[in-house]
Amino acid sequence: MPLEDTPFLRACRCRPSDRVPVWFMRQAGRSLPEYRALRGDRSVLEAVTHPELAAELTLQPVRRYGVDAAILFSDIVVPVVAIGFGVDLVPGIGPVVEHPFSGPADLARIRSLDPEKDIPYVIDTVRLVVRELDVPLIGFAGGPFTVASYLVEGGPSRTHARTKTLMRSDPPTWNQLVELLADLALAALRAQVEAGASAVQLFDSWVGVLSPHDYRDLVLPATRRIFAGLADLGVPRIHFGVGTGELLSLMADAGADVVGVDWRVPLDEARRRVGPGRAVQGNLDPASCLSPWDVVAPEVRRVLAEGGGGPGHVFNLGHGVLPETDPDLLHRIVDLVHEEGGPR
Amino acid sequence: MPLEDTPFLRACRCRPSDRVPVWFMRQAGRSLPEYRALRGDRSVLEAVTHPELAAELTLQPVRRYGVDAAILFSDIVVPVVAIGFGVDLVPGIGPVVEHPFSGPADLARIRSLDPEKDIPYVIDTVRLVVRELDVPLIGFAGGPFTVASYLVEGGPSRTHARTKTLMRSDPPTWNQLVELLADLALAALRAQVEAGASAVQLFDSWVGVLSPHDYRDLVLPATRRIFAGLADLGVPRIHFGVGTGELLSLMADAGADVVGVDWRVPLDEARRRVGPGRAVQGNLDPASCLSPWDVVAPEVRRVLAEGGGGPGHVFNLGHGVLPETDPDLLHRIVDLVHEEGGPR
Repeated sequence: MPLEDTPFLRACRCRPSDRVPVWFMRQAGRSLPEYRALRGDRSVLEAVTHPELAAELTLQPVRRYGVDAAILFSDIVVPVVAIGFGVDLVPGIGPVVEHPFSGPADLARIRSLDPEKDIPYVIDTVRLVVRELDVPLIGFAGGPFTVASYLVEGGPSRTHARTKTLMRSDPPTWNQLVELLADLALAALRAQVEAGASAVQLFDSWVGVLSPHDYRDLVLPATRRIFAGLADLGVPRIHFGVGTGELLSLMADAGADVVGVDWRVPLDEARRRVGPGRAVQGNLDPASCLSPWDVVAPEVRRVLAEGGGGPGHVFNLGHGVLPETDPDLLHRIVDLVHEEGGPR
Repeated sequence: MPLEDTPFLRACRCRPSDRVPVWFMRQAGRSLPEYRALRGDRSVLEAVTHPELAAELTLQPVRRYGVDAAILFSDIVVPVVAIGFGVDLVPGIGPVVEHPFSGPADLARIRSLDPEKDIPYVIDTVRLVVRELDVPLIGFAGGPFTVASYLVEGGPSRTHARTKTLMRSDPPTWNQLVELLADLALAALRAQVEAGASAVQLFDSWVGVLSPHDYRDLVLPATRRIFAGLADLGVPRIHFGVGTGELLSLMADAGADVVGVDWRVPLDEARRRVGPGRAVQGNLDPASCLSPWDVVAPEVRRVLAEGGGGPGHVFNLGHGVLPETDPDLLHRIVDLVHEEGGPR
C-alpha cells in the first residue's frame, strides 16, 4: 500500500479511512524490555548518535504492536545539544542545562542548525528506518516554549516562573529566543522529512501552563513560523502539548493539520475547539494503562466514540507511555482500536 | 461594618458590592519577611499547633496588605496528621507519607476526626484570629482527591498514576477512602466555622489531572458530601483546583458558591462554565508577580475586566503566592484592585 493511502496519513488529512489508526507517544521507550536490553547503559543522547541503534529502537514498537506509525527515537533537546548549548539528559530528572539562558547576551549562544553537519546521525537514522518500514515515520522536534523553558529554567520546572518572567518583562529578547528556537526546530524537521519522514509532530509539551492571552502574543508567532516553513513539504503537521484545553483553537490556528489532545478534554469537545478540516489525536490517559484490561477496554471504547464524529481521528495516549506500562496491554489496545475503530 | 456587609462576603454571595474584594492564596507564607522571622526554625506542622503563633501568622498579611479576607495559617494535611496517618511536611518536597495507603486494609487507618480532641489548636487559632480581625476569616481543608493522592502516592506526584490506578481498578475501596477523607474535611471545616470562620475553601488542588468523566464518577460524590454537610452553617463555600478548566461546571455542581479558577481560563469564560448564581475567584498568574509593576498592572486590569461581567468576583491569584514574590508588589496589586475594581 502506498504510504499516502495508509490509515495514519489519511486520518491526518481528514480523509475517510477504513480504520482508526493508532500509535503511542513514547512507544519507543523504557516500557519495552527489548528497548532496555538494546539501549543498555548508553544514555539517550548517546543512543541517538548511533543510527543503527536508534533505527532499531524506532522499529521495535512497530514490530511488537503493529501500530500504524513509527516515531523517530530521539529527544526534543537534540538540536540544542548539537549546537553546543550545553544540555544533558539526566536520568530521573530530564534536561539539565549547565549555563541557563539568562538574558540577551545568551542569544549569541544559539547558532543556526546545519542538519547535515550537526545532526547527520538523525538523518541517517531516518534513512535506515524508512527503508525497513511499511508504515509512515513521524519526525519530531520540541516546540519553542518548551525548549525555551528548559534553557531558561536550567531544567524541568513546576512553575516555569523564570521563563514567564523573561517572556513578560523582556519581550524583545524572548521573541528573538523563540524565533531562533523555531528556526532550529524547522531545520531539524525539514531534514527529517527530506530524509523520508512522512509526518512531523511538534511537541510543545509544557505550553499548557500559559494563558491563551500569553500564548497568542508570545508563542503562537514563533510556532506559526515553524508550521509555515514546512508547508511546501506537504506532510501532515501534528501539534501537541499537555493541559492545553484553552489553547486548542490557537494551536490549530498556528498551522497544525492535527492537534494532539490530552485526556482532560473529551475528543468531541476538542474537535469543536480545533474546528473543521483538522484532525485530532489522542487521548487515553496514560495512567489508565496501568489498570487491568477490563478497566482499560471501556476507556478505549469511550475515546473511540468521542473521537468518532467524523474522519480525522488518530488514536493515541494523551501523553507518553509511562515506563511501568505492560507492553501486552498496549498491544491489546492496538488490537481493540483496529477491531472496533471501523471506517469513518 | 458587620462582616456580612464586607465586600468579600457580598461578592461570595453574588451580591452587588462597592468594590472587588481581594486576597491571595498563601498570603500567609514565605514571601513575607515577618513570616520567616516569626516562624523561625519551626516546621509548618509545629507552628500550626501553637495558636498564638498561628494566629499571628494569619494576621500578618491582613495588616501588611489590607486584603479583604484572612485565611487560616494551616495545611491541608493537618487532619490526616492529627488522626495519626503518619504524614510529614518535608521542606522543598511537600507531604511525605511513611506508610502510603495501598489497599482496603488501610481504610481502618483513617478514623474519624474529633476536632475538639484532635485539632484543638486549630479551633483556638480561629478564636484568637477572629477576635483581632475586622475582615472575614476563611477556613479551609484539602479536597478528597488531593489528600487521597498524597496518601496513595506517598508524596507529591507528577502523574498521580497510583491514585488513578486505585480509583479505576478498585472503585469500592476508592469510594470508601474519599468518603472517609470527605468526613475528615467536613469535620475540620465545621469546627473552623463554629469557632468563627466566615467562609471556607476546599483546596482540591490537583484534581485537574482528571478527565471530566473520572471526576464526575469518582470525586464529585465525595465532594458533594462535604459541601452539603456545610449547608446549614450558611457560610460561602469556595472550591479550588489548578488546571480545572474542563471541570469548572462539575465543581460548581458539587455545591460550591464560589469557584476558584487558575490563570488558564479567562474569567469571563469561567463564568459561563460555572453558570449563573455562583461567584468566581481568581485568576492572576502567580508567576506574573515576579515581573516589574509595569508588566503586572495591565495583567491585573485584564483580570478585573474579564471578571467584571457581573457581581461575584473575588480577586485572587490563580494559585498560591510564590515564595520569591516581593510583598510590595502584592501590596500594589491590592491597592490597584481597590482603586479600579469599582462597584459591580
